[in-house]
Amino acid sequence: MKKLINSPETVVSDALRGLAAAHPGLRIDHERRLVLRAEPKEFGTVAIVSGGGSGHEPLHSGYVGFGMLDAACPGEIFTSPTPQQWLDAAVAAERGAGVLLVVKNYSGDVMNAEIAAELAAESRLDLRTAVIADDVSLDAPVRRGTGTALLVHRLVGAAAELGHDLDEVHALAERLAATGRSIGLALRPATVPAAGTPTFELDEDEIEWGVGIHGEPGRERQLRAPARELAARLVDPILADGLPSGPAIVLMSGLGATPLIELYVMHAEVVDALEAAGVTVARALVGNHVTALDMAGCSLTVLPVDDELLSLWDSPVDTPALRWGR
Amino acid sequence: MKKLINSPETVVSDALRGLAAAHPGLRIDHERRLVLRAEPKEFGTVAIVSGGGSGHEPLHSGYVGFGMLDAACPGEIFTSPTPQQWLDAAVAAERGAGVLLVVKNYSGDVMNAEIAAELAAESRLDLRTAVIADDVSLDAPVRRGTGTALLVHRLVGAAAELGHDLDEVHALAERLAATGRSIGLALRPATVPAAGTPTFELDEDEIEWGVGIHGEPGRERQLRAPARELAARLVDPILADGLPSGPAIVLMSGLGATPLIELYVMHAEVVDALEAAGVTVARALVGNHVTALDMAGCSLTVLPVDDELLSLWDSPVDTPALRWGR
Repeated sequence: MKKLINSPETVVSDALRGLAAAHPGLRIDHERRLVLRAEPKEFGTVAIVSGGGSGHEPLHSGYVGFGMLDAACPGEIFTSPTPQQWLDAAVAAERGAGVLLVVKNYSGDVMNAEIAAELAAESRLDLRTAVIADDVSLDAPVRRGTGTALLVHRLVGAAAELGHDLDEVHALAERLAATGRSIGLALRPATVPAAGTPTFELDEDEIEWGVGIHGEPGRERQLRAPARELAARLVDPILADGLPSGPAIVLMSGLGATPLIELYVMHAEVVDALEAAGVTVARALVGNHVTALDMAGCSLTVLPVDDELLSLWDSPVDTPALRWGR
Repeated sequence: MKKLINSPETVVSDALRGLAAAHPGLRIDHERRLVLRAEPKEFGTVAIVSGGGSGHEPLHSGYVGFGMLDAACPGEIFTSPTPQQWLDAAVAAERGAGVLLVVKNYSGDVMNAEIAAELAAESRLDLRTAVIADDVSLDAPVRRGTGTALLVHRLVGAAAELGHDLDEVHALAERLAATGRSIGLALRPATVPAAGTPTFELDEDEIEWGVGIHGEPGRERQLRAPARELAARLVDPILADGLPSGPAIVLMSGLGATPLIELYVMHAEVVDALEAAGVTVARALVGNHVTALDMAGCSLTVLPVDDELLSLWDSPVDTPALRWGR
């Protein structure tokens, strides 16, 4: 295993030092392991908090900032934050109008966020949770949460910034969670630093379909194929899951070790495949946004939108992951 | 070779289709292979043009936009744009106040840009070139151009936007070219699609030092080491090359297949090493910015700055590679 790290034990704390050094717009509580805005949002607005295992960067910490998250709680690599981290993040982010926790559907994350919610109720913190379970490669209730989480961070973050109350923000998150759909493929598995070996084996001519973002193997393997075929095989199960025609936001995310030029090739083919099915790509994000350490491959997320959602999408935003440096 | 492409022959044109679909702020001339701003800059201001082989994304096309480039001309993978592309880009970008071509020091790029400059002189286009040769792992005159090019795009792009004339913008580019320094290391080589095999071989416990961004092997190999040691070995030759103490802009760039979490770990260690030598990190960019297809590893660029340069750095900017989607 070759990685740019000091040791498997310190990778998360070392990366948080780097994040702090690079982005003065963030305030990092190293002891409690929280990433917060240096300038908290306006008092009286709903706070948006997310978190999960580390290894998905820039998710979640890179999306703390105006128009997105108020706090992120990074766990160890591919490991949920503790209940105390979730609670600390909510308490630190709260600005007098309640808190929404955005949680991806993994048993550890959901359990720990629920414990945090119970603790919050005891301390009379008005806290709701929205669970993202958008991976169409698995059947409910075990559907994993992937790229839709990022789109939810953005859209509910925008709504909160505009003064929508907790009921409205929570309802919006639930609506988006129910309509966003994702699926991923891997060309090469990830290697978790503490393990030192890849999470699964893959032959030189094989592609793993339906992979998770924690190195989970997928549901099937196929031979490598041209991007146009791969794009169709990503789009088909999303359509089959009930994606309506009409405008959508598309996220073409690399899994951490995917060159951008390949993501643009895939995006071109995905746009063609979606538009052939009557889905118009109203907005797009292309890049390594929701990742799985050094996994090579990509995931596609499609979220149907209306004019109200597009207006939220286009509202001001300023986060480390998507802005000019500093 | 497993890549998300249709074919080695179409990867550049396919990626340009994806770029066009994702970014309505760009206008792409597919026939002449140019990437332009959809809304040209104010008439009477200097145009900034850059280009080079494809495979370095988001460089160069992703940095076309307000406050940076007016046009980029992408060549085939790791291959210079043709003289006609360089010339077409300059003519298309020109807004009545001359054009600066920013060229990285590779023989093909320099030769083709010089031919374009001669053709421009015949047509009375006021065109200058600035050559970036910042890689301290090689001796002049063969020093390659790497990360400093991106910082130059930003700073001269900002100066041009503010109305600095061609003499001023050209002098600024030459000054930055003379003071920016870079060096890179690879954990894993790149594979050029048309070749299908890695550009060099590297054992599981080896790191290649002084790699180029076209898959060129480096000047030496060493065993893998903790990030803190790697950071010191990146910083030392940059200091030895004459980096002055004082404020600097730092670019910690992945080479295309490097997870962001590793880049933040490296950035934390680089900041410590620089500050121990009296260099303060005034601004930072951390991410896969100046890449070499699917090479894993990183490069460090350090550019000394003063208040005037920091003010240019902090001026408005809006490009596909560093902005919210659309």
